[in-house]
Amino acid sequence: MTASTTPFTLARRAQRLEPSVIREILKLTERPGVISLAGGLPSPDGFPVEALRAATERVLTETPREALQYAASEGFGPLREWAAAQLQAQGVAVTPGQVLITTGSQQGLDLVGKLLVDAGSRVAVESPTYLGALQAFTPYEPEFASVDGDDEGPLPAALDAVRDARILYLLPNYQNPSGRCMGAARRAALADRAGALGLPVVEDNPYGDLWYDAPPPPPVSALLPGGSVYLGSLSKVLAPGLRLGFVAAPVALFPKLLQAKQAADLHTPGFNQRIAHAVLADGLLERHLPAVRARYKAQRDAMQAALEAHLPAGCHWVQPQGGMFFWVELPERLDATALLPRAVDAGVAYVPGAAFYATAPKANRLRLSFVTVSPERITAAVALLGAILKEALA
Amino acid sequence: MTASTTPFTLARRAQRLEPSVIREILKLTERPGVISLAGGLPSPDGFPVEALRAATERVLTETPREALQYAASEGFGPLREWAAAQLQAQGVAVTPGQVLITTGSQQGLDLVGKLLVDAGSRVAVESPTYLGALQAFTPYEPEFASVDGDDEGPLPAALDAVRDARILYLLPNYQNPSGRCMGAARRAALADRAGALGLPVVEDNPYGDLWYDAPPPPPVSALLPGGSVYLGSLSKVLAPGLRLGFVAAPVALFPKLLQAKQAADLHTPGFNQRIAHAVLADGLLERHLPAVRARYKAQRDAMQAALEAHLPAGCHWVQPQGGMFFWVELPERLDATALLPRAVDAGVAYVPGAAFYATAPKANRLRLSFVTVSPERITAAVALLGAILKEALA
Repeated sequence: MTASTTPFTLARRAQRLEPSVIREILKLTERPGVISLAGGLPSPDGFPVEALRAATERVLTETPREALQYAASEGFGPLREWAAAQLQAQGVAVTPGQVLITTGSQQGLDLVGKLLVDAGSRVAVESPTYLGALQAFTPYEPEFASVDGDDEGPLPAALDAVRDARILYLLPNYQNPSGRCMGAARRAALADRAGALGLPVVEDNPYGDLWYDAPPPPPVSALLPGGSVYLGSLSKVLAPGLRLGFVAAPVALFPKLLQAKQAADLHTPGFNQRIAHAVLADGLLERHLPAVRARYKAQRDAMQAALEAHLPAGCHWVQPQGGMFFWVELPERLDATALLPRAVDAGVAYVPGAAFYATAPKANRLRLSFVTVSPERITAAVALLGAILKEALA
Repeated sequence: MTASTTPFTLARRAQRLEPSVIREILKLTERPGVISLAGGLPSPDGFPVEALRAATERVLTETPREALQYAASEGFGPLREWAAAQLQAQGVAVTPGQVLITTGSQQGLDLVGKLLVDAGSRVAVESPTYLGALQAFTPYEPEFASVDGDDEGPLPAALDAVRDARILYLLPNYQNPSGRCMGAARRAALADRAGALGLPVVEDNPYGDLWYDAPPPPPVSALLPGGSVYLGSLSKVLAPGLRLGFVAAPVALFPKLLQAKQAADLHTPGFNQRIAHAVLADGLLERHLPAVRARYKAQRDAMQAALEAHLPAGCHWVQPQGGMFFWVELPERLDATALLPRAVDAGVAYVPGAAFYATAPKANRLRLSFVTVSPERITAAVALLGAILKEALA
């Protein structure tokens, strides 16, 4: 049977699935000699390999039968307790019984879409927003609505225009791609308005622990008891290859969330959950995170200095206070997608910003990651980028 | 905000999600003193703990940065090659490029549903069929159609009645729950008919390596190139707690399958994939599986003997030649669901068969697992069950 005679008929939702633009761009940038500021990967220098090795040894010695067997769909009890305690410490009122361990926080996004998004219903997002969330929600066939915002995130008054949305998706801490952090006042105003409108919030927080100046304000969820779903991730603080995240959901929503999880993959690997819990219970993050923060902060500072030194007038950016990305606004007449091949030829890669918009993409934005490249190479790469931009403006 | 004032609106598909019946039953059976023949878990005595420990050590020593980093959505290349080689050895024409590594084969079912099932479209299943598949497909809102069958599986002539189905879901080897294995002639006739009708097949094979008398015939997929999706699992031959499975899909379908996977959880843990590949490449299965088969075969034989000795006249079953389950047909007037509390009080638990039917459940069926309980306890449990049944018939 050839491809043209395949008996398979795709579901309508599958028509919407598209190859990731970023994935295609990353292929382009994998040329030798190119310094890539395009990736979104944490630095492997920060992986706590020795701690994970010791924890694995302990798990396979003490509880091999439990770690390798089928397990509860909810997740490993002590890891759920750890996640709940983390949230409680930030003022979010949740119990371990409201925590579902997921196969990375990407799965949390998929489950939220499965549970809450009907074909044709509205999903409100920031502009720009996290591409992976758009990808997770898209198969559930929503109409995306972009909420107007500024350098601090969505404008509270703009929520009225999306009051009929099934969810408002927010990434308050050091957003991917924009790097911006919502201040405490903005969070309070957004929570107030969402609460008044009965607009449910989905709060995604993969980067909250990666702060370089001061910790971010408490989550929006702390101000919206019962009115938000919170997504957490261990990918940036431990290691992405374990694929561990969690969802904290209102009591009313939890049973359906759990059933969706069970249908999706029965449960997240118990082996991985027990290893992660062993390192977390041992206080690893307290010892480990300061070093990760110091490394990333030095790289952030190098990129800030290089941007100031090399970018032409008319470029705008806000120094991120955490996370992994700078978001650069170029002069209006430059198109970051069109410029990318020239930049790659010159030896530097970035992600054009257009892919991060659910609606009305802006061509003159680009995302630069500072976490996987050394300060010296960041400086060299930004110098190359600056030269390309100046040439394009000349 | 209380549950009654939650701002969340469930998607229509979420209304269909229900708590797993089996899960509820398993809670009932977890009483101390009850011998449970209800579970579907492999025996932890068969987990290759030492091999996994050595492989983990190797992975964290040799490739920690790669194992713990984000990875390709397709899966770890060498593991995809291993899976393709396994299929090729059974006559299935696939390349590694057609293999997607999944987070357990349950995720393969979810992705198949996401890709191929529209609300209101038909999904053809065996009767009875695997409950986890019904759970995975249900949120995509199909109309299930049960295909008439006999002790060897669906009847080829019965496929005409479901020719408009989006997929025909088959579990040819030692089916859960019925334990039956399709013979080579039945497979050929089903493949012929499905091919002629243009009816796409989804072939699920979690139990194929657990054969006790002779290996099963080659997969239906070997007879349907381009016309089937094949789902494999490492849960029964290595360990479920790693959550590793795979999907082999026609070339025409693979890109959309990959995009669905990416949206669902980005990728299956690379850490786990590398550990599994290390033990598999080392030839573990060849050394390990004979011992697992010998253990399960002794337990299967003990259950067969006990059923012959203790079940009342009028009960019907076919001794399974592999897998984990006996499927017992009781005399027409007995209801296995109604009898369960009495059986649990007497000290034995099973799963009533009704949950395994997509349509027209049969009340007088029950499923017995023989893999987690020793031969002595199997004999004792079946004797208790026999007494309950005789009492109910008296």
